Amino acid sequence: MYRNFKLVPNVIFGRGCFAQLDEIIEKQRTDTDAWAVFVTDEVFQGKDLEKKIPLHANDLLLWVNVDDEPKTSYVDQLTLTVKNTRSTLPCAVIGIGGGSSMDLAKAVALMLTNEGSSTLYQGWDLIKNPAIYHAAVPTLSGTGAEVSRTTVLTGPEKKLGMNSDYTVFDQVVLDPELIKNVPREQHFYTGMDCYIHCVESLEGTYLNEFSKSYGEKSIELCRQVFVDNHPDKDDKLMMASFFGGMSIAYSQVGACHALSYGLSYVLGTHHGIGCCITFDVLEEYYPAGVKEFRTMKETAGIDLPKGLTADLTDDQMETMITVALGLDPLWENCLGKDWKSIMTRDKARSLFLKI
Amino acid sequence: MYRNFKLVPNVIFGRGCFAQLDEIIEKQRTDTDAWAVFVTDEVFQGKDLEKKIPLHANDLLLWVNVDDEPKTSYVDQLTLTVKNTRSTLPCAVIGIGGGSSMDLAKAVALMLTNEGSSTLYQGWDLIKNPAIYHAAVPTLSGTGAEVSRTTVLTGPEKKLGMNSDYTVFDQVVLDPELIKNVPREQHFYTGMDCYIHCVESLEGTYLNEFSKSYGEKSIELCRQVFVDNHPDKDDKLMMASFFGGMSIAYSQVGACHALSYGLSYVLGTHHGIGCCITFDVLEEYYPAGVKEFRTMKETAGIDLPKGLTADLTDDQMETMITVALGLDPLWENCLGKDWKSIMTRDKARSLFLKI
Repeated sequence: MYRNFKLVPNVIFGRGCFAQLDEIIEKQRTDTDAWAVFVTDEVFQGKDLEKKIPLHANDLLLWVNVDDEPKTSYVDQLTLTVKNTRSTLPCAVIGIGGGSSMDLAKAVALMLTNEGSSTLYQGWDLIKNPAIYHAAVPTLSGTGAEVSRTTVLTGPEKKLGMNSDYTVFDQVVLDPELIKNVPREQHFYTGMDCYIHCVESLEGTYLNEFSKSYGEKSIELCRQVFVDNHPDKDDKLMMASFFGGMSIAYSQVGACHALSYGLSYVLGTHHGIGCCITFDVLEEYYPAGVKEFRTMKETAGIDLPKGLTADLTDDQMETMITVALGLDPLWENCLGKDWKSIMTRDKARSLFLKI
Repeated sequence: MYRNFKLVPNVIFGRGCFAQLDEIIEKQRTDTDAWAVFVTDEVFQGKDLEKKIPLHANDLLLWVNVDDEPKTSYVDQLTLTVKNTRSTLPCAVIGIGGGSSMDLAKAVALMLTNEGSSTLYQGWDLIKNPAIYHAAVPTLSGTGAEVSRTTVLTGPEKKLGMNSDYTVFDQVVLDPELIKNVPREQHFYTGMDCYIHCVESLEGTYLNEFSKSYGEKSIELCRQVFVDNHPDKDDKLMMASFFGGMSIAYSQVGACHALSYGLSYVLGTHHGIGCCITFDVLEEYYPAGVKEFRTMKETAGIDLPKGLTADLTDDQMETMITVALGLDPLWENCLGKDWKSIMTRDKARSLFLKI
């Protein structure tokens, strides 16, 4: 049984194509009361991008704070804000920002049509009703959130996505001009999220030719960005991210993502930097990938923080291990069906202690 | 202004995934009278594949003959056959075969909901109503018909596709096992269609990073198939075709496709072999591509027919030139905005005379 993979059905790519967003959303404004919600990273408040958001009179510009990774409580609160804004549901939800903002947009679009708290839907295919039409405008590239069928949320009990075909965006607007001013560290961490999940996918046991074709090209594009410093690096990183996301269709991430989920859950470490920190201690599992990663890290002049787990309480360490080892498919992809005999709690602890 | 590219929204890939077709179509059978049409290349009559088609009691198995490239008159006739089969429209049209069968399935799905002859819709965005749900099961790889927004038809006046977002399939079923028994020549001609349109796209003036990423990977996969004879060559050719089709999103084919359209229009030459014959005389425009093509041709042990235009009447030659030069975007992509001063009627004639 193979998964029938749901793709984003509409993609526009090109320098300056953000200017076409209004025209694209217009098709959803089928009656005079129609209104849209722009879920936008508050880092853009007062910036050029804010002025370019095609806001109509009835629309809601919903600034979001992504200092913390998206939480289920925050999703529930944002959904309530949208519901309380007007008596009708919006015709479109547009996420403008990085992986967290895009995931918040997906989550709000889903929760507007599915009752109860978002904690009820953390898992696989638990969503019952189609979402509100939702579109993504990435301003950071690497996470693959623009094409994935998940929205990763930290709940009271777990960090786990709402995975469903309904989660997938209806439209993606890929404008490489939007990522040209990303701060150096953020650019590296998010780009490496892409590089790392492609390594995990390509080295994994789940791989087939569909995922391989996308993953290999994504890694090649990452090299052009982070090794060659190619003049078209913004365009290339945007495509690397898109291909990296597509690569996950028939594969899975692996050890790095699993461990980094534990790290994020306990310490709130952001996903991109969390993956970098974790990947750096995984040469045993991904020798070639970790070697190349370190070269890219040096080229970019990045120093990763160290000693993150030095002051953990025993309880925190046990929670970190439990969250990481709870992600069965990731470990199975990395280590095969017998993964439990290889990645014991002690082994996981020893890896976390290196971080 | 960039095109908002419509992708096939659902793709399943995997060896043996054809067995999941019934379950996939089932979702379209929303009432008890629902029936599906399987537009299938008649080459499979009495073959194993026929037995595996998931035909329900009310369904229509519509065998199609693709000895000739799809004609508008044939599309109109098939559409009428479907309309006359039952009083309701089918819930799904599934194309099983190569580029011609898939194009016929697309065309029938469109013409069931759009009035008049298919000749009315040859062009760009002339289709008014959404098509019947339509799915593709390629049994030949290379044309990219499984992902394209066109269905190429030969009408009384022109060879031109019905290009529209509605043309795009709703579902593609990519099962590499279905292409393992393709005859050697056909395998080569169709595979080269992919290789050639990627060369035309990558060497063209329209290219951007989206199309480049897809085109480059597609060519790499073609090399693994036709140079390396890779053990996974069926999987790889299927992905090469998919990527080749995606590559055309923001680019265009070029001189080879333009000239081969003229050849097909006058002599009825099939598209794959027509592209091979034409590409072989285009070293002036695609030197590296033609060189590599010739290596692949030798590796595959293929002899191309020669002297095709030797016995043409003057009228036939003039028609061939007119059809080929009528494809403005293809020439502009190949030669730039001043293409008319480069590709004169005399120049086109001299190229056709080499064929």
